[in-house]
Amino acid sequence: MTDQYSSTSAVGILDSGVGGLTVVKEVFRQLPKEQILYFGDTLRCPYGPRSAEEVVRFTMEIIGYLSLYPLKALVIACNTATAVALEKVRHELPVPVLGVIEPGARAAIKMSRRGRVGVIGTQGTVRSAAYESALKRIDPDIHVESLACPTLVPLVESGGEDTEQARSIVQKALAPLKKSRLDSLILGCTHYPLIADWIGREMGEDVILISSAEETARELSTVLHHKGLHCDGPARHPGEHQFFTSGQPELFRSIAERWLGQKVTVKHVELPVLEENPV
Amino acid sequence: MTDQYSSTSAVGILDSGVGGLTVVKEVFRQLPKEQILYFGDTLRCPYGPRSAEEVVRFTMEIIGYLSLYPLKALVIACNTATAVALEKVRHELPVPVLGVIEPGARAAIKMSRRGRVGVIGTQGTVRSAAYESALKRIDPDIHVESLACPTLVPLVESGGEDTEQARSIVQKALAPLKKSRLDSLILGCTHYPLIADWIGREMGEDVILISSAEETARELSTVLHHKGLHCDGPARHPGEHQFFTSGQPELFRSIAERWLGQKVTVKHVELPVLEENPV
Repeated sequence: MTDQYSSTSAVGILDSGVGGLTVVKEVFRQLPKEQILYFGDTLRCPYGPRSAEEVVRFTMEIIGYLSLYPLKALVIACNTATAVALEKVRHELPVPVLGVIEPGARAAIKMSRRGRVGVIGTQGTVRSAAYESALKRIDPDIHVESLACPTLVPLVESGGEDTEQARSIVQKALAPLKKSRLDSLILGCTHYPLIADWIGREMGEDVILISSAEETARELSTVLHHKGLHCDGPARHPGEHQFFTSGQPELFRSIAERWLGQKVTVKHVELPVLEENPV
Repeated sequence: MTDQYSSTSAVGILDSGVGGLTVVKEVFRQLPKEQILYFGDTLRCPYGPRSAEEVVRFTMEIIGYLSLYPLKALVIACNTATAVALEKVRHELPVPVLGVIEPGARAAIKMSRRGRVGVIGTQGTVRSAAYESALKRIDPDIHVESLACPTLVPLVESGGEDTEQARSIVQKALAPLKKSRLDSLILGCTHYPLIADWIGREMGEDVILISSAEETARELSTVLHHKGLHCDGPARHPGEHQFFTSGQPELFRSIAERWLGQKVTVKHVELPVLEENPV
């Protein structure tokens, strides 16, 4: 990545597909002056079932492409990639690199009143225990319960988040947590903010929901500020942001415009190695 | 300040008096592994009515004393001192320096849903317009209403926060904001978290209260992490923290123990120039 960046340079955001757009939406809202370059590796999505080596390689390939632009910061907006690739990327890049796990963990520690935190995520994220280690690294006494919810991403990806069926899928997925007396629940997957209403109804109003997307945008603001890299121009126009996908640009565009509520320009990019989805 | 610091070094927190103990309480809660050195300049409290030059000089004197210890970060837990001295201190110290204004502003931007943010603080803080500039620097479209509440600090300092009279003082102080249709309110003074319940009842449950103390502890966590300065030992024992005051150590100790709910050791320190309170 080039060292030729300044406070007006763009922020790079990468994800295995469209999930990271929830982070983009929050960055647009919380940091309206920042320019975003987003890469969604839709062709090779999901990353969850892949090996750590493969996810690291894919992440580095995306960064290789985004590095053609003078980025001032990078956000890994994918829980799986954060869990396995964040440390390596941090060591290799000259700019601040943020993942989505630590911001969610720190927010949970701030908001939890009885130290009983739940985490829901994909199987890969839960298996990595990355939230649990991030939480316990800060506060060894915190009680953490993690639950893999493999049915929730397909629900969102299929566009079924507003249907009555969504309620029963969420209900069934969260049932194991109902007796855990949690005081907060981390939405440990960038797809989940889109079904946060259902999750909230199921968990009850005493359980605070923590969106990694919202918290990651907040931490990006903090980090840019402390590095003197906050952009100080006018708010950006939608046309200044750029979206890249390894998959079908038309499909990506229609999802992105629906989620973000604004026009987006999408470019198809062929990464060095394009592979099939895993069996 | 010495360059000989490491991740196990202490975090320095300074304030004009006891108000910054609300930040200490949150740091204890959110960062139980960190050691704290606190300086409360009780003898010269309040800073609010003093000139900027004087507040900067006092702040630098306190830092001069705290710098006898190998600090890894410094928190200016006083809104007035943050407003006038933060930038200077940041330029002069080799370690990360946090104020209490930006964390509150960033939290408000995250939590506000309709972009209508209120700020209450001392006359000095409101006059400096520091929250308003911090908010508008990030989001030029945000609507900000600031209100000086000079009766609230005396209420807390007199220990009257649990009395029935507190309700009417808070009611009267906040009256000018009642018709402002705010969606969030920044408690822009480190004393206010102690009367947050009264403030919440007065503003109604639709208005989100933002505690600068809570948010500053959260940002300290973020900044330490991104600098590789998070302490990774066991949780600290109360006896590992140290409290210094320019005023009466016994009075300071009794307030600190009541607020923090734990034993504290307080040392009286005579600063280079000890002056009378302003008339």
